[in-house]
Amino acid sequence: MKKILIALEIEEKDKEAVRRCAQEAGVDCEIVFTTSAEATEEQIREANFILGNVSPKKIGASENLDVLQLFSAGADPYMPKGVLAEKTVLCNATGAYGQAVSEHAFALTMMLLKKLHLYRSSQLRCRWEDHGTVRSLAESTVLVVGLGDIGLSYARLVKAMGARVIGVKRRAGVCPEGVDELVLTEEIDRVLPEADVVFSILPGTPETAFFYTAERFRAMKNSALFINCGRGNAVAHDVLLEALQNGEIAGAAIDVCQTEPLPADSPLWQEEKLVITPHVAGNFHHASIYRGILKIALGNLACYLSGKPLGNIVDLSTGYKK
Amino acid sequence: MKKILIALEIEEKDKEAVRRCAQEAGVDCEIVFTTSAEATEEQIREANFILGNVSPKKIGASENLDVLQLFSAGADPYMPKGVLAEKTVLCNATGAYGQAVSEHAFALTMMLLKKLHLYRSSQLRCRWEDHGTVRSLAESTVLVVGLGDIGLSYARLVKAMGARVIGVKRRAGVCPEGVDELVLTEEIDRVLPEADVVFSILPGTPETAFFYTAERFRAMKNSALFINCGRGNAVAHDVLLEALQNGEIAGAAIDVCQTEPLPADSPLWQEEKLVITPHVAGNFHHASIYRGILKIALGNLACYLSGKPLGNIVDLSTGYKK
Repeated sequence: MKKILIALEIEEKDKEAVRRCAQEAGVDCEIVFTTSAEATEEQIREANFILGNVSPKKIGASENLDVLQLFSAGADPYMPKGVLAEKTVLCNATGAYGQAVSEHAFALTMMLLKKLHLYRSSQLRCRWEDHGTVRSLAESTVLVVGLGDIGLSYARLVKAMGARVIGVKRRAGVCPEGVDELVLTEEIDRVLPEADVVFSILPGTPETAFFYTAERFRAMKNSALFINCGRGNAVAHDVLLEALQNGEIAGAAIDVCQTEPLPADSPLWQEEKLVITPHVAGNFHHASIYRGILKIALGNLACYLSGKPLGNIVDLSTGYKK
Repeated sequence: MKKILIALEIEEKDKEAVRRCAQEAGVDCEIVFTTSAEATEEQIREANFILGNVSPKKIGASENLDVLQLFSAGADPYMPKGVLAEKTVLCNATGAYGQAVSEHAFALTMMLLKKLHLYRSSQLRCRWEDHGTVRSLAESTVLVVGLGDIGLSYARLVKAMGARVIGVKRRAGVCPEGVDELVLTEEIDRVLPEADVVFSILPGTPETAFFYTAERFRAMKNSALFINCGRGNAVAHDVLLEALQNGEIAGAAIDVCQTEPLPADSPLWQEEKLVITPHVAGNFHHASIYRGILKIALGNLACYLSGKPLGNIVDLSTGYKK
């Protein structure tokens, strides 16, 4: 008997699909439907397969847990030792966020390039005022830092608008579609001065914390735009604010913050050249995310029950998909 | 001797190109460089070829004027009888604005779809607040009303993001690249209920004044987004405001207003669901515009001096390029 815990609010037809999955595998299953917030410690400790981002504390390295299938792409809260038993396979939902997050980041990019954030501010002050010339992706070099599913989707979008794309990734490989030049993360300082737009979609790992130092902002063009939809701690708030205030870069947009929610008294809110969205690029804000998660989770549940190899396994040493 | 009036601030190398143009045609020319605002009535009345949007009053149907080459795409101020002599050929700069205006309209579209205008408002109030689900062009039907250079460029951009595109134009013809279905302007009411996004890029002619009636907004989906980068009088301010306030449509963005500049006491400024930019989509805000105008104007100057047929001629009966 396998205990399956679906700790995510799902549609009736998808509950049916979970039940069918168990039936088809011919495995006797007890299936519990709840949410990640409401899942009890008992339910979590007994479960053999969990779908959902349940509290790491409540897992407590449970030896019953064979598979933890997250609905997020980031897996950082589950990486520290003591959260998961050694036997537990951790799977993320990389692949479900590509369309939604890349489109949000792309919309932020266009907003900054066309100065729509400045026009919105003017509008709210009832001012018909001109903010001068604008730029186009067609004459821009875009640095995409992190070439996973989201980074690659974003690269294809800006490429379609005519941008030259430099992709930055950890490991050497074939240059993918939509990317003109591939450089390794350790070589980023060589290409930072070339970028008109820097899009960061780094996951939260020890290596990516405070990756964008004051020095790196100084290395960018004064006209550069910086967009972060990865993890908030890739850049310290004061470093970003100083880079904007000192004119090291021309504008920025962040969907993630070092502290979330961003406190009401943070000076970031009032920086004209900075656009803030409250971690909404993903987070079930577009229908494609839910559909993508269910597809990955149902696939892995079927594999688990029939003893086949799982997909989307997280490498606990790096935080990336293996 | 031909009198050439360049009533537009141009770069030194382009002044040289104008002089070379006259030389190559082997025509004795007197060339005056000024701006549209500073051109005197005398300069205008004497000129045989003018580049620039000089005051219609100062032209006074001058019989000397063979060609008026505008730097704008719209020609409305020069269309009424009595502005130009019958012999004067009016040319516009259609083609110079495609990239800049379509990209601005596209950025506005993405902003509305991803609710970035609402997030910017929240930011200015220091609020970390969630505005709910968003949509993608990939699941949208986009109506492009006006299929000139700008409309077609915009169609290609939204198509690249996966939209289904319905083009609306005055005359039947072959369905162009980037457009899935072509309908005639008189059939628009049939397709308005299908549109998730309506992009209007109609020129200012008697037929397009107040084209978007209250009835037409009611015919749109309640979730529809309306974007106007054509002429401000295509929609009355009170009609647009009511459509938004009554929830007939979900959002709008306008780069053009019925009255420009929009008065500070207009209720439009404070409508959350409306984005206003102050007629900056074109207006020399992107380098491609200046380059495009110079290319068209130098081409027409060369044709004029060598007696060849001109391009970009405006049909005075319709206001469109012939």
